Amino acid sequence: MQGEIITTGTELITGRVADFNGRYAARRLHEAGLEVQSITMLGDKAPLLQEVLAQGLARSQFIIITGGLGPTDDDITVAAAAQALNLNLFEDEALLARIRRCLEERGLPWEERYARLAVIPEGATVLDPGGSACGFSLKHRGTWLFFLPGVPKEMQLLFDSFVLPFLVGFTAGGNYMRQRMLRLFGMSETQLQEAVNRMKEWPEGVCVGFYPNFPENHLCLTLKGPDPQVLEEDLDRLTAALGREVGDVLLGPETVSLEELVGRLLLKQGLTLAVAESCTGGLICHRLTNIPGSSDYFQGGVVTYGNQAKLDLLRVPAETLERDGAVSEATVKAMALGVREIFHTPLGLAVSGIAGPSGGSPEKPVGTVYIGLATPTGVEARLHRFHGSREEIKALSAQTALDWLRRELK
Amino acid sequence: MQGEIITTGTELITGRVADFNGRYAARRLHEAGLEVQSITMLGDKAPLLQEVLAQGLARSQFIIITGGLGPTDDDITVAAAAQALNLNLFEDEALLARIRRCLEERGLPWEERYARLAVIPEGATVLDPGGSACGFSLKHRGTWLFFLPGVPKEMQLLFDSFVLPFLVGFTAGGNYMRQRMLRLFGMSETQLQEAVNRMKEWPEGVCVGFYPNFPENHLCLTLKGPDPQVLEEDLDRLTAALGREVGDVLLGPETVSLEELVGRLLLKQGLTLAVAESCTGGLICHRLTNIPGSSDYFQGGVVTYGNQAKLDLLRVPAETLERDGAVSEATVKAMALGVREIFHTPLGLAVSGIAGPSGGSPEKPVGTVYIGLATPTGVEARLHRFHGSREEIKALSAQTALDWLRRELK
Repeated sequence: MQGEIITTGTELITGRVADFNGRYAARRLHEAGLEVQSITMLGDKAPLLQEVLAQGLARSQFIIITGGLGPTDDDITVAAAAQALNLNLFEDEALLARIRRCLEERGLPWEERYARLAVIPEGATVLDPGGSACGFSLKHRGTWLFFLPGVPKEMQLLFDSFVLPFLVGFTAGGNYMRQRMLRLFGMSETQLQEAVNRMKEWPEGVCVGFYPNFPENHLCLTLKGPDPQVLEEDLDRLTAALGREVGDVLLGPETVSLEELVGRLLLKQGLTLAVAESCTGGLICHRLTNIPGSSDYFQGGVVTYGNQAKLDLLRVPAETLERDGAVSEATVKAMALGVREIFHTPLGLAVSGIAGPSGGSPEKPVGTVYIGLATPTGVEARLHRFHGSREEIKALSAQTALDWLRRELK
Repeated sequence: MQGEIITTGTELITGRVADFNGRYAARRLHEAGLEVQSITMLGDKAPLLQEVLAQGLARSQFIIITGGLGPTDDDITVAAAAQALNLNLFEDEALLARIRRCLEERGLPWEERYARLAVIPEGATVLDPGGSACGFSLKHRGTWLFFLPGVPKEMQLLFDSFVLPFLVGFTAGGNYMRQRMLRLFGMSETQLQEAVNRMKEWPEGVCVGFYPNFPENHLCLTLKGPDPQVLEEDLDRLTAALGREVGDVLLGPETVSLEELVGRLLLKQGLTLAVAESCTGGLICHRLTNIPGSSDYFQGGVVTYGNQAKLDLLRVPAETLERDGAVSEATVKAMALGVREIFHTPLGLAVSGIAGPSGGSPEKPVGTVYIGLATPTGVEARLHRFHGSREEIKALSAQTALDWLRRELK
């Protein structure tokens, strides 16, 4: 059972507003295991709507159309659809009475243009949520059509009350669908594809989707079958097998961010953290503090952009800065130890590098980044060479530093 | 001249992510006076893409297709398009060399699947922005087709560099189009609309677009006419008139961010800055250091999440913290003075507040934020009450703090 969504409104195709209705319906249908093959946004013009409707009838078993049901001149959906389906329009007396009652209850006077709201194609069934705008459904040559209002709140109410329950019930005889979106870091999309190809555990019909999500990669597993319990178990098994194939590159489900993972590990081990940032300029602290409750394990940090602050605040020895420079193994180690000391934390994380676009040299080009990690048992530093814009180098440095900490805490 | 947009990706038709590319292209085209009649989102399936492409060719003079140009198995756009247009595919040697060079520069090994990236339909012209993903264009029976990557940043770069200038030039017919996107902060969209309505200076045919861009509002002015010089002068005149109407709310052109404006003002006045952050958690430092050359005026900052760090590092008096609490006028003033002192800067900016979702109280609900600014002539604090999620409150606090500094420096 495949379907499609058509949303109408000039505000959509001029980019003025985002298409909430299409995305809402697509997500709800997908979660319910119903496949949407396209979402088409159109303006308020009858000929193209008729064309797209005719194409949809030829390829989809259900079509959801939103918008254009109102009383004004640019509300053309009903008339255009009736013409495309070759159906007569009629005034639904019950619907008309319902509209009159609605206006009365709200103390609004009757206006002739409201009569349009009661005109629907022959064979249509009114979808009436009570106290809000109505829609209608009809079946045409094997395709179910659902016409819903464009106002998101009204659309969602009708969609959840009528459309989704109907379609799920209609297809229940068939299969269930279950999905898992996974978050990965530390492997290119190509390497990831190869790792997936190496795996032998894929059951028949599994769908694997790759989604680059800088600086991470996301991977979506989709399964269909008659038993939802079996599908969940299969997903658990596949996730574990992928973990064996890619190792620590697998962060976990998409819903948990890297900074949240780090936070959970710190909490679990009763550890606290302080961060010294040079080239990342506060981004690591910003990401850590995006997590509610981070004050339980994150004590704070310093952004030491100038050398003076590295000396004064972090107590990096002057001779280290002079001999090795601010971007060096010795300096980043001293920063990690220093920040750990001034915040009285067992863990100190530090980053010093050249984010560019200027400031590079042949020995230390833009993208040269040292990361330091101080723990109760010692201090270690790692050299990285990142590529990209200033903001990308900042993002990669912050992500790599947090990821090192995650692997260390596991 | 009418066109359409086709965006591809399973993540779109499953409602997992919003279609940024379709909306971006639609908005930019609309601002430039080019009409988009539909935006169609499709999954990564060749038959439907071919069907929709064929329909598009019959009704549109230009088609923009995004996504599916990458090296993995679900990247099906090029092959599907070649089949729909009945064109042969060939390996573009220059493009292949360019891809090899790119990999080398990044120190990445060659992998066979990258060869796919250099395969394009015969007659296609490569759109190469240099240092980022390429796309291509081709003309087929009177319709211009533009194939762009799905990653929004890459797509936008190619769209702005090649697609929009080409289409605008193609349709100019003697007329030029000039646009200015303006950045505003500190006024609601309705207030802004009223201010615009009050203005008397609008020339015939000017198009004004409003775009909420949290936490800012953006406003786009579009003019068309035979003389580009006159259009630029008109835009200067209108921008100045808008500035008179809304005052300091007008930040300037979209291309200059608030943090860059602050940086320019600091540079001009030879001043340096240090920042103490509590609830913003490093976001202000992160934004300031996104600007190349910020080390010339930004000395650094501290993220004092715990009270101990406020005492130890910023020398906030213990009795102040005890009497007034961490979120108070007295504390934020002491933080601003303290950070100014330890970084030896004339200016100290500080923020302390409750970002939520927990930690609020009846007297100090979530969203209560104090901002402090210390200058050589004294220290001042302001109380704000923001609304929204944790991340929105962080963003509003950082924006308001930077904006205060901007107004102070003007």
